[in-house]
Amino acid sequence: MVPAIAQDAKTGKVLMMAYMDEEAWEQTLATGEAHYHSRSRNALWHKGESSGHVQKVHAVRLDCDQDTVLLLVEQKGGAACHLGYESCFFQELSDLQNGSWTTCCEKVFDPKEVYK
Amino acid sequence: MVPAIAQDAKTGKVLMMAYMDEEAWEQTLATGEAHYHSRSRNALWHKGESSGHVQKVHAVRLDCDQDTVLLLVEQKGGAACHLGYESCFFQELSDLQNGSWTTCCEKVFDPKEVYK
Repeated sequence: MVPAIAQDAKTGKVLMMAYMDEEAWEQTLATGEAHYHSRSRNALWHKGESSGHVQKVHAVRLDCDQDTVLLLVEQKGGAACHLGYESCFFQELSDLQNGSWTTCCEKVFDPKEVYK
Repeated sequence: MVPAIAQDAKTGKVLMMAYMDEEAWEQTLATGEAHYHSRSRNALWHKGESSGHVQKVHAVRLDCDQDTVLLLVEQKGGAACHLGYESCFFQELSDLQNGSWTTCCEKVFDPKEVYK
């Protein structure tokens, strides 16, 4: 199982990080849509299967140690996060000493409307 | 211990992924330079301590599960990878069906010159 980072191919925004096992890797390459391994469900996770917010994979990159995957994707629906944000990384500490967290991105959708 | 992704604050390039423990997190916030936990050495790792290629941290983001860190950094020396590439993610599969890997980025430095 290796970490997999999804990055928006156009905007460069880092959208999320999840994990891939061999099955997820093979399904991603075979379908061209990001698949991960859900650790909480211990099952193959086709990202967007509930919300429709699938990730079309434009390119796959591997790091120098070959143990981390970077997916360059087109994020359908404009949001990767199940809370409705474009990116899961929406909490920001811009002043490292000050310690106050802010929300750095706008919500794209209302989760209550998408997951019924 | 949580995964930490470093992204170039200016270019948006994903540079590397490593791990942070509490000590690495605290040192990162205290110094404004990225610190990780080296799993191979089981020790605090001040990125760039040998090469001089430190990462000045512009912002820290957390994901929705609060278990992955995204650092927006200024990469000193122009390269994060110990093999001399700007990004550790320099191997690319752009045709998912075809299966042939290409090097997608240029080398910035010669490791033999930097690590003596």
